[in-house]
Parts: sequence; structure tokens; C-alpha cells
Amino acid sequence: MSVRPERYGHPLPTLLLYTLTSIALALIAQPLLPVVLPSHLLQHFNLPPPPAFPALQACLGFSILTFVGSLVAVPAVSAALMAKGIQGRDLLKPGGRVSGPMIPECLGLPIACLYILLMMLFIPFPFSHMFNSGRKGQIEKSVGRECFPTSELTLYLSSLLSLMVATLLGFIDDLFDIRWRHKLPIPLIAAIPTLVVYYSEGGLTSVVLPKGVGRWIETLGWGGWVGSKVIDLGPLYYIYLLLLPTFTTNSINILAGVNGVECIQALIIAASVLLNDLLFLPLWPRWLLVALGGIGDPDAGKILAFAGGEMVQRHLMSAYFMGPMVGVCAGFLWHNWYPAKAFPGDTFCYFTGMAFSAVALQGHFSKTLILFFVPQIFNFILSCPQLFHLVECPRHRLPHYETGTNLLHPSRVIFAKRPAAHTRLVLSVLEILGLVRLERAAESPSPSTSEGSVERAWTAQKGDIVSSTNLTILNFLLVRLGPMREDTLCSVMGGVQVGCSALAFWVRYGLGAWVYGGDRR
Amino acid sequence: MSVRPERYGHPLPTLLLYTLTSIALALIAQPLLPVVLPSHLLQHFNLPPPPAFPALQACLGFSILTFVGSLVAVPAVSAALMAKGIQGRDLLKPGGRVSGPMIPECLGLPIACLYILLMMLFIPFPFSHMFNSGRKGQIEKSVGRECFPTSELTLYLSSLLSLMVATLLGFIDDLFDIRWRHKLPIPLIAAIPTLVVYYSEGGLTSVVLPKGVGRWIETLGWGGWVGSKVIDLGPLYYIYLLLLPTFTTNSINILAGVNGVECIQALIIAASVLLNDLLFLPLWPRWLLVALGGIGDPDAGKILAFAGGEMVQRHLMSAYFMGPMVGVCAGFLWHNWYPAKAFPGDTFCYFTGMAFSAVALQGHFSKTLILFFVPQIFNFILSCPQLFHLVECPRHRLPHYETGTNLLHPSRVIFAKRPAAHTRLVLSVLEILGLVRLERAAESPSPSTSEGSVERAWTAQKGDIVSSTNLTILNFLLVRLGPMREDTLCSVMGGVQVGCSALAFWVRYGLGAWVYGGDRR
Repeated sequence: MSVRPERYGHPLPTLLLYTLTSIALALIAQPLLPVVLPSHLLQHFNLPPPPAFPALQACLGFSILTFVGSLVAVPAVSAALMAKGIQGRDLLKPGGRVSGPMIPECLGLPIACLYILLMMLFIPFPFSHMFNSGRKGQIEKSVGRECFPTSELTLYLSSLLSLMVATLLGFIDDLFDIRWRHKLPIPLIAAIPTLVVYYSEGGLTSVVLPKGVGRWIETLGWGGWVGSKVIDLGPLYYIYLLLLPTFTTNSINILAGVNGVECIQALIIAASVLLNDLLFLPLWPRWLLVALGGIGDPDAGKILAFAGGEMVQRHLMSAYFMGPMVGVCAGFLWHNWYPAKAFPGDTFCYFTGMAFSAVALQGHFSKTLILFFVPQIFNFILSCPQLFHLVECPRHRLPHYETGTNLLHPSRVIFAKRPAAHTRLVLSVLEILGLVRLERAAESPSPSTSEGSVERAWTAQKGDIVSSTNLTILNFLLVRLGPMREDTLCSVMGGVQVGCSALAFWVRYGLGAWVYGGDRR
Repeated sequence: MSVRPERYGHPLPTLLLYTLTSIALALIAQPLLPVVLPSHLLQHFNLPPPPAFPALQACLGFSILTFVGSLVAVPAVSAALMAKGIQGRDLLKPGGRVSGPMIPECLGLPIACLYILLMMLFIPFPFSHMFNSGRKGQIEKSVGRECFPTSELTLYLSSLLSLMVATLLGFIDDLFDIRWRHKLPIPLIAAIPTLVVYYSEGGLTSVVLPKGVGRWIETLGWGGWVGSKVIDLGPLYYIYLLLLPTFTTNSINILAGVNGVECIQALIIAASVLLNDLLFLPLWPRWLLVALGGIGDPDAGKILAFAGGEMVQRHLMSAYFMGPMVGVCAGFLWHNWYPAKAFPGDTFCYFTGMAFSAVALQGHFSKTLILFFVPQIFNFILSCPQLFHLVECPRHRLPHYETGTNLLHPSRVIFAKRPAAHTRLVLSVLEILGLVRLERAAESPSPSTSEGSVERAWTAQKGDIVSSTNLTILNFLLVRLGPMREDTLCSVMGGVQVGCSALAFWVRYGLGAWVYGGDRR
């Protein structure tokens, strides 16, 4: 697609970049003006009053900067990565495994570095006396809380440390192709700073129980060490918190294989978390909150509107992380979109996954976060029969690319021996649920799945299952919706993710209020 | 030296490692016992009372762990680095540039990762209520200070972030061979977290003036905005703080070239800073402090003994960083010692240099730190004529290796044209100071400097300077002390560093008290 072969990345919208950069700088500068300029100059220029959320406005500016920055950074470093052999072949293009285009890998590294750099530069906006000294005499000392948010800064820094560790280890993984068993602890190690600081600050280890469960435990007579609706998990809570990053990083990592799909997932999850955070800020008219929260429970709207200082703080923190994350993912998607000019690498998955875990942990909304991961959970559960070798698992489970039509078809696993009884059972159940398409002996293989021409080592009798589509969500979508182009598949996957996020919001604010009785932590 | 060629690193002292690991674990576990075990069990086992500085004792344990860990980690990852081509030729060995042994490079990466990991795991020891809850009822609430050291934790985390950034960027530098002008901002970027947090927490921007200067400023009538002895530099102070990491990282980086020399410098500087920190802790008998502090000023001993809570806290923090740093440098030196089995790479220099800057910044002892860098400053000043092209600068300025005798000789720069007048002046001054050895035409070149046999493009007249030893401290040592083996040169350099540290302590506690009138910040 690119005109000059030495050019990396998709062509940049130069004018848009300049415009966006100007807007971003203005957004960052405006809250700084009352701090920097003396008051008589401010009155002279008749400037608008400082914004109510100066740090949030600056965060918007930084988010735009991360978008622009990653648009520019990806092509800038591609040459260096290619020169070092950090590249991979795009398998779903003409030529495929043999002569498909070589694409620079591991572009998650520069964008993660950019993100972390901007997040570090952002620190003075929410975490200093900058804006207080600007609005002289308006420093409010809240009761029982020190004026300077040191505790929040600590959490912020520990999250950044976790992101740094995830990025560094992800890059080492990409570079040295670390073995699977050495890879597993990476998210655990990356989570250490967040967890240790959480522990050191004496973090909560209690979870809110669903209404029914709480009543059930009381019936069993365990009510003594279980609070009315809250249960203190103690050290178990930390194990849960360790599992969270393992889940978020790996679930993004395994839902991959099509240009842009890792990135679009991360983008939509980040946008969903951001939207959820913004709902907690006192920015919205009351009618909207009531409308939103009132789906399942007329009281839920009240809860959103009542969200107190602590809750606002937590979600503000989360928004500071998710805004730039949306920017960085959107910027990267530009170059990662079909036909991809840059691959994310494991760095990207570790980095984004860790960011989601870190904000959920700090904001105490890990259950809400998991709701946004429904497509990933579905993909994981669907993959289980192959991951645990109930069904044969080929090395690659990417969709199958047909050169002539430029369409993707579901890829098939062709069984090397007659499937065992339990395999047949699993596959039949999946077939009934419409999740796979099976091929049985003496049925003519459909012409699109031309891989069926491989010689079988065993003689199949009529009705024997001889092949199955691979058990991934991408193949499932191709089974249900028919062959499609790679970019269409990525868009469909994005649509599924958006749909699941909408569902998640409904569960959270409609059903959630009903299940947890409005006690949301 | 190694028996099997596939074996990496120097052979490990296995028994010592097991012993040290046991000691380390015991040191870490002992302060934890009162926290973990119930009190009746403690009384039953008749355990010794908990240590006065539980976190410091744990820090000693962690330091031993970093030592053991880096001893083990370096050979463990060498194979992976070699396989990826991250290796360099040892130039000062038989074969030299052509067929010298290939040594894995960038071993600073695994040891930096190890260091950071252990520093993260160490967080709960100083920064949690762990030990307070153990010694029930003994929680002391100091006046005007919250009980939980959130502010110190913030500084600790920001230092770790700076170290992570330095490590990541150093590794990227090692991998992609970043150009010189792109390299320069690396320490500046790495310093950002420390500086931003320093600013956000409203850090001091004042420096203590030497006695004479303060009086001189008052005479000039500037006493109004200058405190009696303290001057507030404002934003200028941040520029000074930005220059500090640039200096510490690069000065270690340019004093390099001989097996073990980067590492031994860092080791001795870390040990000196640690010793300086320990002097501030109320661990020592009074007579020792008086003896130490009483060199220049009989009152200085009093000052050390009076070092108050704030000062103790700061130096405790610094000790937490420097203890494991000594461990990690000592462990790495094992493998980096002549004949080197591992090279540090720029990662090591950025990582250690940043660590020194970060602790000095947090502990407010940047001037003291600079005193420990006297050999590096000397090396830099001596290099200046070549760095700024007053004198020709060859690509490598390593000492010259003579295969027959296995000795290092000072390497020479042979002038491609008649040196200009200013070059001759500089060289003559350096010769008078005994810092270089010049070769003049019509004098027979000494047989050891056999590089003199190169054809000159210009006809030198009698007395013309035709070559000079290169302007580095290593060549200077070889000029003064004569040819020596590579390991002897490294030891001599270590000796110089130790001597300079001793001098630094004298200046700090003898002369320093006199110059700064005992007001030490």
C-alpha cells in the first residue's frame, strides 16, 4: 500500500496532527495560566475562569498528545526494529508463511514508553499545590484528610512502576522469546509494586457479597466473621488481585491473530473504563444519571449522583490512566489497522493488561472491569478444550486466508486419529451450540475449507468427525457470519466488544444495583 | 579460564552462596517473627528481642540476596544474550580487535531487574504498619508528623521509577546503539519521576552557602533575598538536579575500557555513600563520632551526634538503596573481573548512575555525592582537550595491549599533522604536570609504544610533538606507574577510588564543617 518501500507505517494526516497538538497544548496550558501569570495580567486579558477540574482538562490534553505521539512514534522507530530483526511475517496476506510481508514487531514498546513518559510529566497537575496556590486563599482543608494527596500519589506511582515492569519484561519476552513457563510469572511480577503498596498503605481486603450469598452465609452461622454484606478475604484477596493481571494480560494476548484486533480490544476496554469513571464525576445533569442508573432499580440513579468524595477521587485517578490509554491505543490502531504496518508484540498486551488491572485495583472496581472482558472470557472458555488438549490443538489457530478471494475462512483442525469419545462429546455439544462447524466423513468437504485435502492416517467411517473449526472467537465469528475480509473481521470483533461493553454497563447499573443492593465498592 | 566452553561466567562458590542465602533469609525473617508469630509462641521459644532497626536489618538481608542473585543471574542469562548477538569482543586480550574472546554484553540488565524486583519486595519493611502492629502499643506518634511514612514511600517509589526508566532506556541504547545526540537526554528523562515528585511534594530548592560567600553577598547588599546562609535557587535548583544524573551516569560511562573498572567504581561509590549514610544513624558510640568529626572542627562531632529525626530518615532511605547496590555491584564484579566473562553495557552505567543521583537528591546530599566522584571528575577534565578536539581524538582510547608480555601500556595518539600552537601549549602543560608522556621527533620512540611505527603524513622537525599518550585516567596511571596487567590496573583504579573516598570523608567532615559552618543539609 505504501508508495515508497522504505516508508514505515500508514501515511500520517499531517494537518490533523498539527491541529490536535495545538488543541492539546491549549488544553494543558489553560489551567496553568492562573498559576503562571500574575493576577493583573489575567484580569487585563479577560481570560475565562479556570476550569472546575483543571487536572482532568490537562489529562484530556495529555490524552490527545499520546494519540499524536504514538501516531508519530510508530513509523519513527520501525526502521530500527526491522534492522535488529524484530519483525514478523503477516501470515494472512498473499504469500502467507513463505513470502508474506515482513512487518516490524513489538511496537508496543515505543508507545508504552511514550505513555509512561507523559504520565510522569502529568504528575504535578493532580498531585501538587500548583492549582491551590493559583487560586489563592481557596485552599480547602477537608476534615480528616490532609490537603496534599500523598496517598493517591503513592498509588499512582506504584501503578506506573507496574506498567514499567510489564513493559520491560514484555520487551524482554518479545526479544528473547521466553518459554511459556517462564512467561507466566511476568504479570505476577509486574503486579508486585501495586500489590505491595496496596498492602503497605493498609488497603481494603474485603469484598461486597451479592444479596443472596450474604443471607446464605448468615443462615450457615458464619455471620460472625462475615460482616452484614461485606466479607474480609484477608490474604486470599491478594491472591485474587494477583490473578487479575494474569487474566487481563493473557486474555488480550490470546485473542489475537488478525490485524488490529489486540489493539481494538484494548481501545474499547479502555474507553469503557473511562466512560465508567466519568459517570462517577459530578459532571453530568441529574436526569441523565437517573436515566442511566434507573434501568434496573429506581434508586440506582441516586447512588450515582451521591457518589462521594472518596469515590470521585478513585475514579478520577482511573480516568487519568485511561484517557491517555485510549489515546495511545487509537494512535497505534492507525498503523496496526489492515493492512498492518506495525505489530504490537507481547509488550503491548502486558502493558495494556497491566494498566487495566492497576486502575481496577486502585479504584476498587475489579468486578466491573471483568464485565468489560466478556469477549475475552468467552474466547478463553471456547479455547479451553484445545488449550487442555481435549481437542487436538494445531500450532496456529489463525483464520485461514484464501489468496484468490482475499477472504478469511474459519481454519480447521484435521484430526490425526479418530477422536476419542469425550472429544466427540465436546465437539457435538459445541456444534449444537453453533460454536463450531464439524466435518464428518462421507460428507463432501466444503470447497472453502481446502485444507481438508490432507491425507488422513486413519480410515474414517461414515459419520466420523474428521475435522473441526478451531475453537477461537474469531473462527466462531467466521462460522456464524461466513467468510469475510480481514478488516471486516476486526471491525466485527470491535462491534462485539462494544456490544459487550453496553451489556456490561447494563449489568453494572441495572442488574448490579439489584444484585449488590446498591452497595458499590 | 573456564573448563567447558559452553559455561558462562566465572565458577560460582556454591557453598558460600548457600551459606549467604541462609544468613540473608534469617536476617529478613528475624524482624518478621514478632509480626507473624503469636506472642505466647515467641515467649515459649525465648527468642531475642526484635532489632532496633528492623527494616535496616532486612535491608542487610536483601543486600546479601542481591549479591547472591547477581552471582547466579549473570551466567544464567548469558547464553540468551549471546544467542541474540548482544555481545562484544574483549579488545585487551590476545587476538584483540580481530579474534579476542566474545563476551556477552549488557549484563547490567538482569542485575538491574533483580535489584528493582528486590527493592519492590522490600517496600513493606520500612513502609507499612507491619512492625508497629508487632510491637503492640508502642506506636509512637511524633509531633507534627503522620505515623505512616507516605511521603517517604512516595520518594522511594519515584526513585524506583527513575531506576526503571534508566534501565529500560539503557537497554534500548545497548540494543539499538542509539546515536550520541539521542543518548544525551536519557539521564534527563530518567530523572523526571524523581524531579516531578520532588516538585509535587514541594521540595526544598535552597542550598547552603559557604561561609565566605554568604558574607560576600551580604556585603553586596543582596542579603534581602538571600537568607543568612541559605540561598533559594528556585527553578535553577531543578536545572542543577537535572545536571546531576547526566553527570553521574556519563562520568561512570566514560571511565571504562578495562575489565571490571565500571563495576569497581560503582561498587566503591555505593559503599562510600552507604558508609556516609550509616554515620548518620544512631548506631555508633559517641567517641567514634567525635574522633571522625573532630578532624577539622571540634564541634563537628557534636553535629553528627545531634543528627535529628529528619536527617536519620533521609539517610536511612539512602541506605536502603545503597545496601542492595553494593550487593549487586559486588556480585557482578565477580563475573566482570579479569578475564571478564560478562560486560556491563550502558544499562549498568545508567542504572547505577541514576541510583546515585536519586538517593543524593532525596537525601539532600548531592554535594557530598560529587565528592565521591573525584576520580571521574579528574578523568573528565583530563579528557576535555580530546573531547573538545583541542587534541586529536582517536576512536578508541583504551590502553594498548601487548600480547607477548600480557601487559597494558598507555595508548598513544599519533598526530596526523603538525599540532597547532594551542595543542602544543595544552600538551606541554599536561606534560609538566606529569599527566601525559609526549614523543618528540628525533627521539627514538620507546620500544613499548610500538604504535609509533605508523608512517607520518608530515615531516616532523627535531623537537616537534609527534605523539602523545591518550588523555584518560587509565592511561595516566600507566604513564605514572609503568606497564601493568589488566587486573592490576583495575585494582589500582579501585585503590584510587578508595583513596578519593577517604579524602572525600575528610573534606566532608573536617573541611566541610569549617567551610559550611556546620550547617549541613
